[in-house]
Amino acid sequence: MSTQVESMPMRLREILRSSRTGRAAGAYDALSAKLVERAGFDAVWASSFTISASRGLPDMSLLTMTDYLEATSHMVSTCDIPILADCDTGFGTAVNVAHMVRSYEAAGVGGVCIEDKVFPKTNSFVGERQMLVPTEQFARKIAVAKATQDNPDFVVVARTEALICGLGIDEALDRARRYAEAGADAILIHSKQRRADEIVQFLGRWDFEVPVVVVPTTYYSWGLDEASRAGADLVIYANQALRAAVSALADTLGLILRTGSSVAVESNIASLQEVFDLQQLEEWLVFDR
Amino acid sequence: MSTQVESMPMRLREILRSSRTGRAAGAYDALSAKLVERAGFDAVWASSFTISASRGLPDMSLLTMTDYLEATSHMVSTCDIPILADCDTGFGTAVNVAHMVRSYEAAGVGGVCIEDKVFPKTNSFVGERQMLVPTEQFARKIAVAKATQDNPDFVVVARTEALICGLGIDEALDRARRYAEAGADAILIHSKQRRADEIVQFLGRWDFEVPVVVVPTTYYSWGLDEASRAGADLVIYANQALRAAVSALADTLGLILRTGSSVAVESNIASLQEVFDLQQLEEWLVFDR
Amino acid sequence: MSTQVESMPMRLREILRSSRTGRAAGAYDALSAKLVERAGFDAVWASSFTISASRGLPDMSLLTMTDYLEATSHMVSTCDIPILADCDTGFGTAVNVAHMVRSYEAAGVGGVCIEDKVFPKTNSFVGERQMLVPTEQFARKIAVAKATQDNPDFVVVARTEALICGLGIDEALDRARRYAEAGADAILIHSKQRRADEIVQFLGRWDFEVPVVVVPTTYYSWGLDEASRAGADLVIYANQALRAAVSALADTLGLILRTGSSVAVESNIASLQEVFDLQQLEEWLVFDR
Amino acid sequence: MSTQVESMPMRLREILRSSRTGRAAGAYDALSAKLVERAGFDAVWASSFTISASRGLPDMSLLTMTDYLEATSHMVSTCDIPILADCDTGFGTAVNVAHMVRSYEAAGVGGVCIEDKVFPKTNSFVGERQMLVPTEQFARKIAVAKATQDNPDFVVVARTEALICGLGIDEALDRARRYAEAGADAILIHSKQRRADEIVQFLGRWDFEVPVVVVPTTYYSWGLDEASRAGADLVIYANQALRAAVSALADTLGLILRTGSSVAVESNIASLQEVFDLQQLEEWLVFDR
Repeated sequence: MSTQVESMPMRLREILRSSRTGRAAGAYDALSAKLVERAGFDAVWASSFTISASRGLPDMSLLTMTDYLEATSHMVSTCDIPILADCDTGFGTAVNVAHMVRSYEAAGVGGVCIEDKVFPKTNSFVGERQMLVPTEQFARKIAVAKATQDNPDFVVVARTEALICGLGIDEALDRARRYAEAGADAILIHSKQRRADEIVQFLGRWDFEVPVVVVPTTYYSWGLDEASRAGADLVIYANQALRAAVSALADTLGLILRTGSSVAVESNIASLQEVFDLQQLEEWLVFDR
Repeated sequence: MSTQVESMPMRLREILRSSRTGRAAGAYDALSAKLVERAGFDAVWASSFTISASRGLPDMSLLTMTDYLEATSHMVSTCDIPILADCDTGFGTAVNVAHMVRSYEAAGVGGVCIEDKVFPKTNSFVGERQMLVPTEQFARKIAVAKATQDNPDFVVVARTEALICGLGIDEALDRARRYAEAGADAILIHSKQRRADEIVQFLGRWDFEVPVVVVPTTYYSWGLDEASRAGADLVIYANQALRAAVSALADTLGLILRTGSSVAVESNIASLQEVFDLQQLEEWLVFDR
Repeated sequence: MSTQVESMPMRLREILRSSRTGRAAGAYDALSAKLVERAGFDAVWASSFTISASRGLPDMSLLTMTDYLEATSHMVSTCDIPILADCDTGFGTAVNVAHMVRSYEAAGVGGVCIEDKVFPKTNSFVGERQMLVPTEQFARKIAVAKATQDNPDFVVVARTEALICGLGIDEALDRARRYAEAGADAILIHSKQRRADEIVQFLGRWDFEVPVVVVPTTYYSWGLDEASRAGADLVIYANQALRAAVSALADTLGLILRTGSSVAVESNIASLQEVFDLQQLEEWLVFDR
Repeated sequence: MSTQVESMPMRLREILRSSRTGRAAGAYDALSAKLVERAGFDAVWASSFTISASRGLPDMSLLTMTDYLEATSHMVSTCDIPILADCDTGFGTAVNVAHMVRSYEAAGVGGVCIEDKVFPKTNSFVGERQMLVPTEQFARKIAVAKATQDNPDFVVVARTEALICGLGIDEALDRARRYAEAGADAILIHSKQRRADEIVQFLGRWDFEVPVVVVPTTYYSWGLDEASRAGADLVIYANQALRAAVSALADTLGLILRTGSSVAVESNIASLQEVFDLQQLEEWLVFDR
């Protein structure tokens, strides 16, 4: 229910370009996206891992672009902050990337992020078998994405999985530079180490104007201040919301079943009124008066 | 990933017919349905209130049958326990009910529940303006539903909102009896009082073989044992899971933003491995080996 | 694959406001919409009757807003001419209208058309039982639609079924005037007579600046020149495309089956190359080179 | 509106196993599938080429499994003859095939057909660059499909594009044999030659019990009798319906625009009543009486 004074692509671009390090959080449906907004984050990460999880399926290219786009569109229609869509590999080759950019731009997201893994992909935290496409092949995907977008502000983030695959910082930097040259509006550098060392090194050696995005899932003790000092432009808390929901549901449902009523959980769960508020019930009721 | 030895309609029917009072919990997506199953509930309630909430919209017939059916189908494909679908008013008149029964039966649910409110409806806990359709009109919907189903075990639950509308127990009983005569496989009697008194009275006076379903959202201190003694056949905890998710997300996201990292929440949220497990990752990885 | 120099709402508005009588044709999927465009029509009518038919279902509010919106979105992404969406009754009451306007505007249509029938509706050419909502109730729907739209150019067409219901021209005019006062950007006056007489009378007595749309399905011998002279601003050929497809498929499939090959039909059906051309294959192939 | 006395997988299996050569025709939506059934065909081919075309997009893996499955589900709900779903490459690797089989089987199709091209694929009649996956890799997809299906009658057709890729009959036979050994319930041998010679040779040398399916799109002068004598078990007329619709729409819409009315087309297009009949209007109207 927003009046759009500035486009979502422009707002996402400003978050990435601002001297202040931006904060995004991963959502999997419209409600979780709304809660990301209400908590005060700058942007929503429409995460393929958590959207897959909400469907009860693993994050290995089983859900399709159609599935992700639908979940993401629901977020767009609910939120007043920009959505950055996690688009895996772009769902195939360069032609799929073109189709993806058209579809996501029409849906109103601020931007998309694609990664240099082979389709079908496996989640970055699963196994050691991650395979990357050749650098030039992915650079071409980025170039196609940029050539396809209609609004010049639309953001295309290039994510390299070089560190995830154990290829080292030199390879990660080479790839990131090449993707930046191909037109990427930001680089997402991903790591699954428990410490942020390789991320810090990457940021220290990054010599392009293009902003850098980080995702402290495994190296979570590395805080925002440190990320900011190291030069990160956007920090994404990608999956904590979904993981919080899993725990809360398991605990709440278990307790109800064990105690034979919801008495024990009532004080820990949102009231009906709080849910009505998130549904913006009052604003909708007006129409039928 | 189940081998279906017994049909879901038959299993739902048995839960309703069993001497033990069954327990169902409301889910809004495949993952929450899976967590309902894992917690040990007998069935999943595909709740229109919480599915609406997950879309960021109020429960007032804004989401369509197509939307609810899609969410429900995702639950079916993930769960090994039966799904009872909350189908509002049947999404219009008797012809819509026929279309609904065909669509939901094809989707593999155990059964559907329709209520005697006017379309478009408003959530039962909102305002005082709830309006019911005439008894005969709703009885006809039930009859059409029963005449339309293909599998004789498919369950059609008739929900009366007579108590919600303040029409009293006599009216509730009259309606319930008429719906049972029209073929309803169970009656859902809904109340928004803080105490279970009117529910207990209804159950005490219920004189049909047809099982009765209750939803202790506002009268939550009334426990399973009491419900069982009073004669309830199925208790639905309709929205606690969604409300738990709302609280957990608000708390978790707020804490991350305030503290600048996820350190403070890590011990309270599910691990990645727990999410992988819910996604049945290992079972899927086998296919690509 | 268009560069959007002017918004679709503005273009649709100009078609309605132009001194030349505009021509629209009904489509049921992206391909039929593309063929409407290629034939040279000014706009596409995303017809609920033909979209229902393409789903094998009658036009009686069985398909939902979600279904129609999806079909319509596919047209939008394929066409370079504006889409006017046939939105039945607005899919419920005023609150549904608000949801509908938000959803369709976000999807990129030029405008929507709603009619003053009761939900769920039956197609205008079926039976005699058509019922209208009170004038003020529908006027409020129009007012809500206009208050909800974001882009001031977005077009809301008010369709009155007064003639379909045999209520006469005075009632049709009264309703049309009231809807225009409530903000309707155009009036669609529908008739199921074999001759255009009542349409001509309506147009002759129409005394508002608001443009008028006509749909010569049954009174098809009334040509564009006559419609233009009578004062119609837009003529919609609503269902001929679908009806042509039905005949062509029945004939072609029948002939193949009777003759045991497609030899007899090859000269009457489009070549693969013509289909490739409609799919804009060459433009897409470029991306993978 | 069928009473399902025999499962669709069993019926499709019988068509393939019958001594009479079966006939299927390609459909792209529920209505075209219904027309295939009404014309008297034995089965519907849910064709990826024509479903893509109906979306205005080329047949190069732009539409997703979700898109194809939705179109196919609509056919299932409308038709009383079995649907054989054209599932391209299985939409990725073996894990995608497992997901596909679960999804399509749940949707109620008689069977699926997958081909040995690389994902993302290009339509078989486009260009010369078609690439096949190694034989063993595709045989594994077939084995995974067979291991995944729940109903033992569910049909998995293996389609080899060896002739399309110019690899010759020996390679086509080697692949087909290997796929049959892996469990394929039928082989689809595709050719884009103007004459049926290589198909005839293939059939002449085929030495497995497994039935063979042919698609005379380019070699259309080869009639059913010849196909039958050569040993084909099912002939698919894959895209003639869509091509007939394209011609009919172009002609009809063009004529309306040129003549300023639909007078000239009325005698060539189905009447409203014929469309009502296809929508099974009378059967639905009963519910609201």
